[in-house]
Amino acid sequence: MTDFFAGIPQLTYQGADSDSDFAFRHYNPDEVVLGRRVEDHLRFAVCYWHNFAWPGNDPFGGQTFLRPWFGDTMAHAKLKADVAFEMFHILNAPFFCFHDADMRPEGDSFAENTRNLEEMTDYLAAKMEAGGPKLLWGTANLFSHRRYMSGASTNPDPDVFAFSAATVKTCMDATHRLNGENYVLWGGREGYETLLNTDLNKELDHMGRFLSMVVDYKHKIGFKGAILIEPKPQEPTKHQYDYDVATVFGFLQRFGLEKEVKVNIEQGHAILAGHSFEHEIALASSLGVFGSIDMNRNDYQSGWDTDQFPNNMPEVALAYYEILRAGGFTTGGTNFDAKLRRQSLDAEDLILAHAGAMDVCARGLKAAAAMLEDGKLEAARATRYAGWDKPEAQAMLHGDLASITKDVLANDLNPQPHSGKQEKLENLVNRYL
Amino acid sequence: MTDFFAGIPQLTYQGADSDSDFAFRHYNPDEVVLGRRVEDHLRFAVCYWHNFAWPGNDPFGGQTFLRPWFGDTMAHAKLKADVAFEMFHILNAPFFCFHDADMRPEGDSFAENTRNLEEMTDYLAAKMEAGGPKLLWGTANLFSHRRYMSGASTNPDPDVFAFSAATVKTCMDATHRLNGENYVLWGGREGYETLLNTDLNKELDHMGRFLSMVVDYKHKIGFKGAILIEPKPQEPTKHQYDYDVATVFGFLQRFGLEKEVKVNIEQGHAILAGHSFEHEIALASSLGVFGSIDMNRNDYQSGWDTDQFPNNMPEVALAYYEILRAGGFTTGGTNFDAKLRRQSLDAEDLILAHAGAMDVCARGLKAAAAMLEDGKLEAARATRYAGWDKPEAQAMLHGDLASITKDVLANDLNPQPHSGKQEKLENLVNRYL
Amino acid sequence: MTDFFAGIPQLTYQGADSDSDFAFRHYNPDEVVLGRRVEDHLRFAVCYWHNFAWPGNDPFGGQTFLRPWFGDTMAHAKLKADVAFEMFHILNAPFFCFHDADMRPEGDSFAENTRNLEEMTDYLAAKMEAGGPKLLWGTANLFSHRRYMSGASTNPDPDVFAFSAATVKTCMDATHRLNGENYVLWGGREGYETLLNTDLNKELDHMGRFLSMVVDYKHKIGFKGAILIEPKPQEPTKHQYDYDVATVFGFLQRFGLEKEVKVNIEQGHAILAGHSFEHEIALASSLGVFGSIDMNRNDYQSGWDTDQFPNNMPEVALAYYEILRAGGFTTGGTNFDAKLRRQSLDAEDLILAHAGAMDVCARGLKAAAAMLEDGKLEAARATRYAGWDKPEAQAMLHGDLASITKDVLANDLNPQPHSGKQEKLENLVNRYL
Amino acid sequence: MTDFFAGIPQLTYQGADSDSDFAFRHYNPDEVVLGRRVEDHLRFAVCYWHNFAWPGNDPFGGQTFLRPWFGDTMAHAKLKADVAFEMFHILNAPFFCFHDADMRPEGDSFAENTRNLEEMTDYLAAKMEAGGPKLLWGTANLFSHRRYMSGASTNPDPDVFAFSAATVKTCMDATHRLNGENYVLWGGREGYETLLNTDLNKELDHMGRFLSMVVDYKHKIGFKGAILIEPKPQEPTKHQYDYDVATVFGFLQRFGLEKEVKVNIEQGHAILAGHSFEHEIALASSLGVFGSIDMNRNDYQSGWDTDQFPNNMPEVALAYYEILRAGGFTTGGTNFDAKLRRQSLDAEDLILAHAGAMDVCARGLKAAAAMLEDGKLEAARATRYAGWDKPEAQAMLHGDLASITKDVLANDLNPQPHSGKQEKLENLVNRYL
Repeated sequence: MTDFFAGIPQLTYQGADSDSDFAFRHYNPDEVVLGRRVEDHLRFAVCYWHNFAWPGNDPFGGQTFLRPWFGDTMAHAKLKADVAFEMFHILNAPFFCFHDADMRPEGDSFAENTRNLEEMTDYLAAKMEAGGPKLLWGTANLFSHRRYMSGASTNPDPDVFAFSAATVKTCMDATHRLNGENYVLWGGREGYETLLNTDLNKELDHMGRFLSMVVDYKHKIGFKGAILIEPKPQEPTKHQYDYDVATVFGFLQRFGLEKEVKVNIEQGHAILAGHSFEHEIALASSLGVFGSIDMNRNDYQSGWDTDQFPNNMPEVALAYYEILRAGGFTTGGTNFDAKLRRQSLDAEDLILAHAGAMDVCARGLKAAAAMLEDGKLEAARATRYAGWDKPEAQAMLHGDLASITKDVLANDLNPQPHSGKQEKLENLVNRYL
Repeated sequence: MTDFFAGIPQLTYQGADSDSDFAFRHYNPDEVVLGRRVEDHLRFAVCYWHNFAWPGNDPFGGQTFLRPWFGDTMAHAKLKADVAFEMFHILNAPFFCFHDADMRPEGDSFAENTRNLEEMTDYLAAKMEAGGPKLLWGTANLFSHRRYMSGASTNPDPDVFAFSAATVKTCMDATHRLNGENYVLWGGREGYETLLNTDLNKELDHMGRFLSMVVDYKHKIGFKGAILIEPKPQEPTKHQYDYDVATVFGFLQRFGLEKEVKVNIEQGHAILAGHSFEHEIALASSLGVFGSIDMNRNDYQSGWDTDQFPNNMPEVALAYYEILRAGGFTTGGTNFDAKLRRQSLDAEDLILAHAGAMDVCARGLKAAAAMLEDGKLEAARATRYAGWDKPEAQAMLHGDLASITKDVLANDLNPQPHSGKQEKLENLVNRYL
Repeated sequence: MTDFFAGIPQLTYQGADSDSDFAFRHYNPDEVVLGRRVEDHLRFAVCYWHNFAWPGNDPFGGQTFLRPWFGDTMAHAKLKADVAFEMFHILNAPFFCFHDADMRPEGDSFAENTRNLEEMTDYLAAKMEAGGPKLLWGTANLFSHRRYMSGASTNPDPDVFAFSAATVKTCMDATHRLNGENYVLWGGREGYETLLNTDLNKELDHMGRFLSMVVDYKHKIGFKGAILIEPKPQEPTKHQYDYDVATVFGFLQRFGLEKEVKVNIEQGHAILAGHSFEHEIALASSLGVFGSIDMNRNDYQSGWDTDQFPNNMPEVALAYYEILRAGGFTTGGTNFDAKLRRQSLDAEDLILAHAGAMDVCARGLKAAAAMLEDGKLEAARATRYAGWDKPEAQAMLHGDLASITKDVLANDLNPQPHSGKQEKLENLVNRYL
Repeated sequence: MTDFFAGIPQLTYQGADSDSDFAFRHYNPDEVVLGRRVEDHLRFAVCYWHNFAWPGNDPFGGQTFLRPWFGDTMAHAKLKADVAFEMFHILNAPFFCFHDADMRPEGDSFAENTRNLEEMTDYLAAKMEAGGPKLLWGTANLFSHRRYMSGASTNPDPDVFAFSAATVKTCMDATHRLNGENYVLWGGREGYETLLNTDLNKELDHMGRFLSMVVDYKHKIGFKGAILIEPKPQEPTKHQYDYDVATVFGFLQRFGLEKEVKVNIEQGHAILAGHSFEHEIALASSLGVFGSIDMNRNDYQSGWDTDQFPNNMPEVALAYYEILRAGGFTTGGTNFDAKLRRQSLDAEDLILAHAGAMDVCARGLKAAAAMLEDGKLEAARATRYAGWDKPEAQAMLHGDLASITKDVLANDLNPQPHSGKQEKLENLVNRYL
């Protein structure tokens, strides 16, 4: 045991009236909701990068966190892993997630990167076997190093494409070795700063080929998890190709991958693209590509990625409502891709931020489940569209403009509008929150 | 002749040094650029709706324009047409565009709407035969009347779907009768106000069927023009399904329509979706669905559709540069879907607004053409991606992760980044503006 | 009694478990919180304009609501008043608010407007005396009529300034006659569309003079209520002078009015200006100008004024927390400057929208009160700044740069940062929600 | 001479037809416009921080620039200064600007910081005496170091206030020693991340006291330059107190400093606050607090500070138009607080970025001057407000509501609106661009 979290107990469910900061008030893993344990519904994952690799810098200031594991040696990386797994334990988190760059030191060559990654993978595997959490997903960091500044798979330099492809291979291997349930790609530099120097056709084609290779490799090695793309509209680049769910879906169709790849939706990225989080989940579900979520909010009024822990229960409930309507998670889960505020310097802040977030999610899930069980909302939705259940309405859908026009004339059709009842439904939702 | 524009001469090209307000300083229809007359490059269209049907209201105030043709009779509609064609003449505009609701009075029934539309179509046809402009596109207004408040093709009530389908048929007929070069669909109410009352699956399916019927009908009647969808992310609804070019492309693919339907891109709608105008044009071109443009700008800092006449030449030039790179317009053109400011009460304001816009577009086109002819920008782009011309790079694209990884290791690949030269290219662009 | 709300009962508090749509679940007027009745804390007001005068139009569509009182006669105006007061009764609302233009027909002259206003004022006075609600505030509509299109007090035409001044006088008279507790000015057209035609100096000076006259007139007639300015950054104009609380405060100081005028803060306007609602309240309180609120939310992702009923309890709680910290309302209250969605056609929608909003506010208030009573949040805040309680810190504030520098050198000062504990505090807040 | 810019010639004016990248096409320092040399109008300054101290990192990636002067020793700092002054020479820049932290190594104590600053100040002074540029302004970096993470003058810890005050003193001393023409304060951390842990009253009071001390010290040491505050609405913090010009003006008035302090307006910050750049300039001028500008643009569609070099001439022209209307710069100037794109790795990119920006500014200035000289725009503005020149209009401004109302009734005033002519004026502006 390290002493980083000295004095902080493992968190347990103590109910809403608990006076302790170090307790779950609402997250009871073993509570059964809609026939499933709450832990199995939510499938919480804690991320490696923001918690253990980010020094607290922002564009206007440097490091604020002083952590004993900051440094570039394998010893630092192992200390970081030790502390990380201690945190997973304190939080009773069933899953974690990582990038290669979070958990191994950066080497001077691809070969050294790979050796470091493999050694750390073994180190993590041992911890997982000793009772640690499972791996929700792994991913490759193809955006921080300067070699990626102009893109990874979309780089004008084919050597960067090659380096990226090889890096993804090693990360898929590591993820497979650790029995990861998914593999994620976030295209942080797959986009452009200016159209003036960009060959859009080439870049999109290369990105399509890259993704096809990833899917092929998955099948080759027998990885059973899902391949997930994480949409984001911009930042760091001016325009990112994986803009939002609809854009990714169009891209997948274009390369024949819409049955092979799903999406990992982040609340903050949804917001930055002009959508509500629940919209992106509902759309992905409708299109058959819903995979997993990053449950970290963006400040609605900040135009950059603020990656805050969720704290608004009603919003969280609407997201889980769409997830439950979609049948719940399969391989996916609830990852916190969230940062402490850079002023939150204390070790306990890491724990409290997650504890609060897990409670907010548990409340949201339970409210969503109650709403679904009660059925009033779905009944209202069904009623609104009931006209379409009639055979003549279905027949019309298979008709043509001329025949429909004849019917409109024959019946002197003059449809009158009906109230959408938005406020009534919003009131209804508030009953469960 | 009406007396609405009394005293205003037909505008002619008089060169940059003209001191007259009623002149083109830069738009010379017969000037030849890149082997094509400027008029044939730009293919300007003037719209019926904002110019002649909009009373100047906004959400906080009512009518400001007092026009003799405001009213609901056929006589009003014909006076409106008279004035409209006088304006087309004054502006020497080669094209115009209309919605049904702009140019015929609203009737009490579908049958009356159709009769009114047909009578006005004949009235316009006579004017066109007498030397008036051609029709760039027609469209149906499926968003203003209260029957459409919850959608047209996506309405929960199948009768509204039917009414919409029949209305589109009559508008396609009118467009065909007037030899329109395109038919446009803007889904102003195809979206939702709240997910709580919305069946996303049904609505998207119905919208797909509707569009398929439109395409079938086009072929049935032998309409040779293009079918165009106009993307917009939101407003009036909270979320509109035709969000942006990428979203529309995914939708078209899903319903097998990506070879049948193109896009009409509006600068203001691009902006509201978080994209630059030139991005949307370049993307549509890359995806093979570029059709036409609405050249009206949005205030970048207003979150609603401001529909202003273009006045920033450098921005306009970048848009035409992408259009020229895409090979220029085929059936499409440059429509001004722009409103006078509601304080611009005078008849001459209508003329001046268009004259200024046409000059800005002509300057932009000529700058774009010069940039393309000079070739420095395209040469820089080609150089940046030259590595991909090598056979081994192309071979890699058809390889797999494992073999690429072997090569990376074998060659100890360590790619170094190269300057993107953004500022240098921006300077280069400024030489032509 | 009209039959508009036929069958809808007066709403009463029935507790959270009520299954009725027509009940308060959380708003219990007589419940005592922090020593004050909940009704007296919240001081709810229902507005005349959006509820009774708005036809449901938006920039892309016309009227959706069909109301028997729509029309321009005194009879229509009285029917509207009858229905309005029936709604106030059903909702058990203690206050209402109005513009002149909401409640009297538009006349052909200033004199006719005034006569209409006076007659309707008498009509309302009778209803108020018969047990109706009190008047929270009155105001003049100086933005809808085309005469105001270029501003009211800031109009380039002095005659519009005069017409506006006279109109405000009549509205202040009506407000005084009805014992209004405040008089509000919203400068919907006090701003500009383009700087190119705007004389900023003149317009700001005229606006300052206008406000001074309003304050003088208040004192002259012995009106005891507060004069309130309602900030909004833009829309309808490109830039509005009363941008936000800080801007209004600067303006008031410049004209020596900061002790005479306060602010009416709307959540939606705060959002559009880039601020949180609670920021604007806290800032106004800190500057001594907090007056009243409009509790209607804006969609964070829509760039225009959506004027929705509040439904997010945690956000509402943070607003009331700042109001309670400021000592609660004095003359101000909680006005719903909110619109039904234009698809919410039914009479009951008007009632349900307010009932839900009142419940959300009551929950928010009670959560805020609990948080304040508990004291943990304020204790944490006090602790964070405790260093400033020391005499040497206070002495430093009255020192100068040179002497402070000497001390820094003498003590080799090297201050270390302390955690801001944001997540811990957010968790704490969530305990009360 | 270092070899960093080896092979790059000093830039000279060569006219618009020059084919060289290393030339001014439009910036001719000695050209006389409105009776003043162009150099004296524009007063260009090059900044130290983004050009020489920023490593190219962003929130998602690290260093991209490899510069021989990166490092923490005095030798590095001097090499940096050598290269910086070589760049100033190549660009023929009349001014530069710096923060303490840009140009001296960070020490372990305040004393060491001060010694380093003083030594570097001497080093720069020698270069300036040897023919280098003048100092437009100096400033203190009170936002990057972790000690400032919770604010400088607004820090909850009085020791940080003290450290900040002492640091500003040393920076004012350095600025004075180098004959700086202004001293700037940018409150990068003067704001909050969450209201929950913030004492708004205390923080604003402390910030007021701090600024008062700065003003007192200026007078004490006889510094003749202007004290300037640079507004910014947010980023890095959630809310920054110096939100925009109007907010700063209110703050200055509150502390009696509106005659002592002016503003340094940045285009990008104006945009982020929801204003046009020209609005902020015009408002500052109207309020008597216009000081200087940072001419670096923000991408309108990126919600963070993109700090790009200006490249849109029409926008730049509108800004200089307001500056010329305000009488031009006195102590202020045109500073480029702009960053290379992080992909612009080459030494020449630094030069080209500035050269292009200086040309854009020169074109903008000359267009603005022509517009002002021509006088049509100002004549139209005067005509629009001509009604206010009448004695009765001026008399009304000194009247009261009751007397104005009598006049409105007596004259049956019914003012009719007049066209605002926005499009005509926009066309007029385009004649000069």
